Amino acid sequence: MIRTHKAGELRKEHAGQQVTLAGWVARRRDHGGVVFIDLRDASGSSQVVFREEDDAHGLRNEYCVKVIGEVRVRPEGNANPDLPTGEIEVVATTVEVLSEAAPLPFPIEGSTGVSEEARLRYRYLDIRRQQVAHAMRVRSKATYLANEVMNEHGFVYVETPTLTRSTPEGARDFLVPVRLQPGKWYALPQSPQLFKQLLQVGGLERYYQLAKCYRDEDLRADRQPEFTQIDVEMSFVDQEDVIGIGEALIGRVWKEILGYEIPTPLPRMTYADAMARFGSDKPDLRFGQELVDMTEYFANTTFRVFQAHYVGAVVMPGGASQTRKELDGWQEWAKSRGARGLAYVLVQEDGTLGGPVAKNLSPSEAGGLADKVGAEPGDAIFFAAGPRNTSRDLLGAARLEIGRRCGLIDESQWSFLWVVDAPMFEEDGEGGWTAVHHPFTGPKPEWADNFQDHPGEALAYAYDMVCNGMEIGGGSIRIHRAEMQQRVFDVLGISKQEAESKFGFLLEAFKYGPPPHGGIAYGWDRICMLLSGGESIRDVIAFPKTASGFDPLTSAPTPITDEQRKEAGVDAKPKDEEA
Amino acid sequence: MIRTHKAGELRKEHAGQQVTLAGWVARRRDHGGVVFIDLRDASGSSQVVFREEDDAHGLRNEYCVKVIGEVRVRPEGNANPDLPTGEIEVVATTVEVLSEAAPLPFPIEGSTGVSEEARLRYRYLDIRRQQVAHAMRVRSKATYLANEVMNEHGFVYVETPTLTRSTPEGARDFLVPVRLQPGKWYALPQSPQLFKQLLQVGGLERYYQLAKCYRDEDLRADRQPEFTQIDVEMSFVDQEDVIGIGEALIGRVWKEILGYEIPTPLPRMTYADAMARFGSDKPDLRFGQELVDMTEYFANTTFRVFQAHYVGAVVMPGGASQTRKELDGWQEWAKSRGARGLAYVLVQEDGTLGGPVAKNLSPSEAGGLADKVGAEPGDAIFFAAGPRNTSRDLLGAARLEIGRRCGLIDESQWSFLWVVDAPMFEEDGEGGWTAVHHPFTGPKPEWADNFQDHPGEALAYAYDMVCNGMEIGGGSIRIHRAEMQQRVFDVLGISKQEAESKFGFLLEAFKYGPPPHGGIAYGWDRICMLLSGGESIRDVIAFPKTASGFDPLTSAPTPITDEQRKEAGVDAKPKDEEA
Repeated sequence: MIRTHKAGELRKEHAGQQVTLAGWVARRRDHGGVVFIDLRDASGSSQVVFREEDDAHGLRNEYCVKVIGEVRVRPEGNANPDLPTGEIEVVATTVEVLSEAAPLPFPIEGSTGVSEEARLRYRYLDIRRQQVAHAMRVRSKATYLANEVMNEHGFVYVETPTLTRSTPEGARDFLVPVRLQPGKWYALPQSPQLFKQLLQVGGLERYYQLAKCYRDEDLRADRQPEFTQIDVEMSFVDQEDVIGIGEALIGRVWKEILGYEIPTPLPRMTYADAMARFGSDKPDLRFGQELVDMTEYFANTTFRVFQAHYVGAVVMPGGASQTRKELDGWQEWAKSRGARGLAYVLVQEDGTLGGPVAKNLSPSEAGGLADKVGAEPGDAIFFAAGPRNTSRDLLGAARLEIGRRCGLIDESQWSFLWVVDAPMFEEDGEGGWTAVHHPFTGPKPEWADNFQDHPGEALAYAYDMVCNGMEIGGGSIRIHRAEMQQRVFDVLGISKQEAESKFGFLLEAFKYGPPPHGGIAYGWDRICMLLSGGESIRDVIAFPKTASGFDPLTSAPTPITDEQRKEAGVDAKPKDEEA
Repeated sequence: MIRTHKAGELRKEHAGQQVTLAGWVARRRDHGGVVFIDLRDASGSSQVVFREEDDAHGLRNEYCVKVIGEVRVRPEGNANPDLPTGEIEVVATTVEVLSEAAPLPFPIEGSTGVSEEARLRYRYLDIRRQQVAHAMRVRSKATYLANEVMNEHGFVYVETPTLTRSTPEGARDFLVPVRLQPGKWYALPQSPQLFKQLLQVGGLERYYQLAKCYRDEDLRADRQPEFTQIDVEMSFVDQEDVIGIGEALIGRVWKEILGYEIPTPLPRMTYADAMARFGSDKPDLRFGQELVDMTEYFANTTFRVFQAHYVGAVVMPGGASQTRKELDGWQEWAKSRGARGLAYVLVQEDGTLGGPVAKNLSPSEAGGLADKVGAEPGDAIFFAAGPRNTSRDLLGAARLEIGRRCGLIDESQWSFLWVVDAPMFEEDGEGGWTAVHHPFTGPKPEWADNFQDHPGEALAYAYDMVCNGMEIGGGSIRIHRAEMQQRVFDVLGISKQEAESKFGFLLEAFKYGPPPHGGIAYGWDRICMLLSGGESIRDVIAFPKTASGFDPLTSAPTPITDEQRKEAGVDAKPKDEEA
């Protein structure tokens, strides 16, 4: 090392020692012939004093420098108790500029008013900023802890292929032309799902991996085309075993990084309850405002809007005092989500009901309403009526919006839970069924024999870990019997031929004594975002892409040359159907 | 867990206990009404006894079963001291078939006479075999230990992007069309080289990653299109620091997995010495037979073949007794490597010289020859004459072949070393220069100012870790000054425009106070192969591909549909040059 000490580690006891530091000029202050420089490295910073102005004359912000000097206790009254190194300073005798810095596109210290695009364009400067570097370090530590936990529990780390064949996960695959087999393409994996199941057939029993996954989706706000999951699969287990490992993993990481002891076992909620009470399969339990099912209440209503398959309500505390513009805003908000609007009733301070809906209610409907939904004078009540799922979705989203607007969410709180017993299937809108998880998800034991007869009711042996309203993990006990797998394909309308072509190799493997198995995958980007206090997964990805998949730093993706195109065999026709 | 105990962990002290096991039928023996089954799981196996033949009637090899029974000490004389569980057996009371197995394509236990293609086609069965499962576990353990060492030394694990822009590593990139930016393509990284250097500019100081890398090469014997490296980069360091971490890493892994204490510091050899003495930049030091430089010796020879820029020799012990066919075989061997042949002299038992070359030598040349090269009566001496590099290459290869044929290599030995001081540049055969490592490799300090004036002599600040004749790691101290980088580009004939278009973002980053930095990358597949005693990296890759990049298990790669092609934007023209 070209330095003897780290800048952030100097203390009073180093006083009198000659040290060599290396790092960056973080701040410079000139005081009548004396120059003070904060020298920053990865460990923190120390104040360096140049007695002769000349030595420091040329030093500008973010120059990379090597300084030799003597540590001394700062003069009386000059100590800075806010800094770990605040009691000392280094009196420089020699300074060497290791490299200069051009004028910066944005300041490294202090101010954060920088556009995200500029930050990503100059990500290497952004990473010098304390909070960004902190997020990288938190992620690294979390990854290390995850390895530790999985190792302690006897898991085998296996790297699965990333140049492979389409996996049936529902999103689009990224494709890679294969020069050595012109006309043929690899797919980048959406997850190691099939391979981790094959490893169970292979008898490894406990697999995990920090797995890079790829989905070519229309990028929504906080998605990336490549993302990371902690991928887990186990044999001879049931749901309790997979859940137990998950709680050990999350528990260790939260405790070691945040000092927070997650109370375990985590609460569990059925999917049905989560949808009914929170209008979400990933409920944020950090605040109340649960949905109220008003279907019975309005069973005999004469108000046409509420003559619906489902009527539900959610209360906005203090919402009655919203301006006309704010109330109109909710209608816009609902429309932007594809709803027709958001019916509301305002509970006036005197207990009477206001708003356009109120006059459509019968006296008895109006009289018991506030009590029924738990509204106080001054509150607003929002309604959704129509098909159950879409109405609950809307109310669930309204609930979250209420939580945010009314400041009901305690941001210091952690709310973990498992959502279990999701349905196996949902209607595909075309008279058929699709898998809620994926087609290898097993039924709960009590549905093993007859899920095919009641696809709308059958429950999957699946579990999602939810934290603060985000799904951070999801898994299931898998099907390992060919006969049961066939029944699932039948429900999904997947023909033998289609199954064979998509994942015939898994079905083939299942002919050779597959063990009962199950697993889970944790969204590592989201988990690290929660751990580091970030607001986007981009905050915990070293070099993230924008919503369109563009990397402002490298300008990837780029056009390719005709020569590259020809050589890669992009336009070749496959020679035969089977290689 | 659906079992109470692991099959491989039962001992005498479990006698009398009721246990539930789950695993696979590894072997079945019928003995007059009693059936013995070896029940195998990931931990090992136990013998299970069925008293009533009926219980075990249907059990065939590799059925997955759950067995409930009582542990008992085996009857007198029936213990098997070769098995950890050899003192006990489990008397079954209940057996449940968890899944059946079809007749197997090859046996799991015993025999290994299976073609690699069959093994890869049914890799999930292959992984049930003891040695394959062992290799997976060794790799997992090695990976865990690597994480431990790097964590202890303060390294930050950072995941770098895998959908990115071409990196200038010399091989071809795999390309990925980008649907959201039709006509543009990502490249899969050949290594995280540029990103890890950017992380140093970002001030992280110590980076590492278990990094997936991709090279679209014409696959030679033991290459894979995707491979894994332990990728390391450090700031404010010189060669000693990077080497020190490397020795800590390798030392820990060999010690914990093989119980072998690697003597450190590892020996170092200059590239020049390695080429002169072993004809290789990755010398296998487990045996001697060093090359002898005969250029001076034959300086005045009249033998036209030896009137060359370089003449060298290597001795084959006992080689004089080779048959004519064997000696002709060496000529074929040399021709297959692109040489014209391999001149040889046979030292007869009486000390006279035989073979076609002998008669061309002068008496004094012949007289001192055996002494000069260290040959004994009965040995053969092989020669190469011509350009220095190609001749040494040939002799180095002959040396390895001699080592193999004569059984000179002690396979139980570990020979680690660092090869240092490689040249910065080599002639490209077209009058120009190419980089021996990559264009960011710095010169040794003594060549910092004038490498451009002597490109054929300048030495790089580079170091390769070699084990048993294989390069298992390679790295260098990088250039961090724009001015020096420019001089390298000038030597390489890389224009400003080309540099800008290929890695302009790195050059841009280097304007902002880049620290001195260096790093290394370890070939993780090879290291794990050495650790597990495998003969190919395919032995330590869960789902490897064949030489043409084909996966016999999934049949990847595959043709894509017209719809996929259209949707992925394969044939779109880019809309603009800059996104």
